[in-house]
Amino acid sequence: MNIPVLPPTRRRPLSHKTVTLAHGGGGSAMRDLIDDVFLATFSGDGRAAPEDQARFDLAALMAHGDRLAFTTDGFVVDPLFFPGGDIGKLAVCGTVNDLAVGGATPMALSCAVIIEEGLPVETLRQVAASMAETARAAGVAIATGDTKVVARGACDKLFITTTGIGVVRRGLDVGIARARPGDVLLVNGLLGDHGAAILNARGDLALETAIESDCAPLNGLIDILIAAAPGIRMMRDATRGGVAAVVNELAEASAVGVRLKELSLPMRAEVMGFCEILGLDPLYLANEGKILAVVPPEEADAALAALRAHPLGREAAIIGEVTAQRPGRVVMQTRFGGERIVDMLVGDQLPRIC
Amino acid sequence: MNIPVLPPTRRRPLSHKTVTLAHGGGGSAMRDLIDDVFLATFSGDGRAAPEDQARFDLAALMAHGDRLAFTTDGFVVDPLFFPGGDIGKLAVCGTVNDLAVGGATPMALSCAVIIEEGLPVETLRQVAASMAETARAAGVAIATGDTKVVARGACDKLFITTTGIGVVRRGLDVGIARARPGDVLLVNGLLGDHGAAILNARGDLALETAIESDCAPLNGLIDILIAAAPGIRMMRDATRGGVAAVVNELAEASAVGVRLKELSLPMRAEVMGFCEILGLDPLYLANEGKILAVVPPEEADAALAALRAHPLGREAAIIGEVTAQRPGRVVMQTRFGGERIVDMLVGDQLPRIC
Repeated sequence: MNIPVLPPTRRRPLSHKTVTLAHGGGGSAMRDLIDDVFLATFSGDGRAAPEDQARFDLAALMAHGDRLAFTTDGFVVDPLFFPGGDIGKLAVCGTVNDLAVGGATPMALSCAVIIEEGLPVETLRQVAASMAETARAAGVAIATGDTKVVARGACDKLFITTTGIGVVRRGLDVGIARARPGDVLLVNGLLGDHGAAILNARGDLALETAIESDCAPLNGLIDILIAAAPGIRMMRDATRGGVAAVVNELAEASAVGVRLKELSLPMRAEVMGFCEILGLDPLYLANEGKILAVVPPEEADAALAALRAHPLGREAAIIGEVTAQRPGRVVMQTRFGGERIVDMLVGDQLPRIC
Repeated sequence: MNIPVLPPTRRRPLSHKTVTLAHGGGGSAMRDLIDDVFLATFSGDGRAAPEDQARFDLAALMAHGDRLAFTTDGFVVDPLFFPGGDIGKLAVCGTVNDLAVGGATPMALSCAVIIEEGLPVETLRQVAASMAETARAAGVAIATGDTKVVARGACDKLFITTTGIGVVRRGLDVGIARARPGDVLLVNGLLGDHGAAILNARGDLALETAIESDCAPLNGLIDILIAAAPGIRMMRDATRGGVAAVVNELAEASAVGVRLKELSLPMRAEVMGFCEILGLDPLYLANEGKILAVVPPEEADAALAALRAHPLGREAAIIGEVTAQRPGRVVMQTRFGGERIVDMLVGDQLPRIC
């Protein structure tokens, strides 16, 4: 899109308290909304590049590695605000993490919003401020954007699509097909908090416990992990579909078996209780600040120590291993000593979790 | 997002005729939808990169220029299909054109879809096929994507966000602030067709005329234009807000006056008639295959000839000039010999035009 830029002196504070269709029309009302809510928040001095595209010097990017990484994600989470985060924080973390798990240093994000007519401008400001704060924490720029407004009822409040570019470190080769028998599986902390927090925030349960989403940018943690375990095979963020989806993809793509230990899965008692009440399987619960990493056995201790030394990895644990038996299958040793197959979720456990 | 990849033999054709919430849940239903509808369509052999991010060799990108361009756009057009195009074609053209007008060679797009539960799978297939066809025509890859499904009523059928990366030619410096007095304004053809086609397709008017959207990827045309007019100052696609928005931004950013000649504006009689009936100003109508270009006077003839030699520029015309008078203002010499100020649109002429 074109982001028309006004000299700061010509900017007008928005007079509307809610977003109207005029704010998506390509005229001066849209310009005022973008200036007042997004540009002033996303760029330090309230000024953005006057062109409709962000530009980056390729030679400067090459200083970080040899491959450009490119990934996108739409966010439709309901509710917009929840304990531990909001749709804006989620939209930044989700794409930063998608870049980082591929071994890329995240560089910049784009942000395309679709707004329902009638959304309070103050809500949009809060979301934009949260995006800006999270982007700063992750060390990425929000470099370009787009704004659309649809009539009341044509979307539910606010959807955000972020797309990210990053640069993959030279010589690093992580991938879902790279696991080998003997490799070790680690996670960086407690599982299921995001899914439980969203469900709880919807208020259907009125539980006393205040479970917070684990939503966080993981690129700093991943830098440290890669330094400690340079032979690392794979990383994935365990978002929609949870840990179960990631380990099943891994087993299939690498043609290996995966063996998990239920007793080793780090999980809050509240989340386990929550799942029992609702008949949910915590292995399928979404996380927004957790990665599953696969490392060769000789690097497992160093990887675990590195994760635990980082604030976002204090509860890190080894949760399983890669085997040669039953390629394509994930088996969990249960807390009662038995075994069960962990299949990929077929349908939908929880809609609009991210 | 993660695009889980199955070996082709394990792919199952979708059994559902409509999209369900399960198709957005991160499990195997989502994988089947992505495999069957998107991957099979977007990649020639039905296989995509198994990682959740697309990767590009930076050294290979540098062969095309020295700067990476990055831009995003959300598409919420209503109806999804209209004469001359559909939301998929629009989503590819819009982002390809946003890259190209900045002087970038478009390289790849990402595609994030938000689908309303109940959308016929066949509709999604048609849109994906249209995206693939348009991307092929434009010479860009659709390299990565994301799929979300929301409950019935939480969005209107289908929204698509495309984000593009491209490489800006070495030595080329186009920009909205670069116009100088004496420069010449050109467009590559008939104005207002897209806006008129969408309005007509909504069926409120039941006009006999079948106006088609001008929706087209313009990167090929722009290559030829730049070769013919290497001193080119600026290009912009005249989408939301129409020609009026672009010339007003230009006048402001370059601190120049702009003088348009109404009689020189290429426009169909049907579109003019349409605007008269509805009380619309054709200068504000959206285009999806039209650029406004500013070139130095000595290159104007060559630019016009180059545009006219291209199939997407046959009706190209010189429509005005840049002046030193009244910086920031756009004045149009009307067909009756008078003058009027062309201001930026304040509100919204037509919602959900793109």
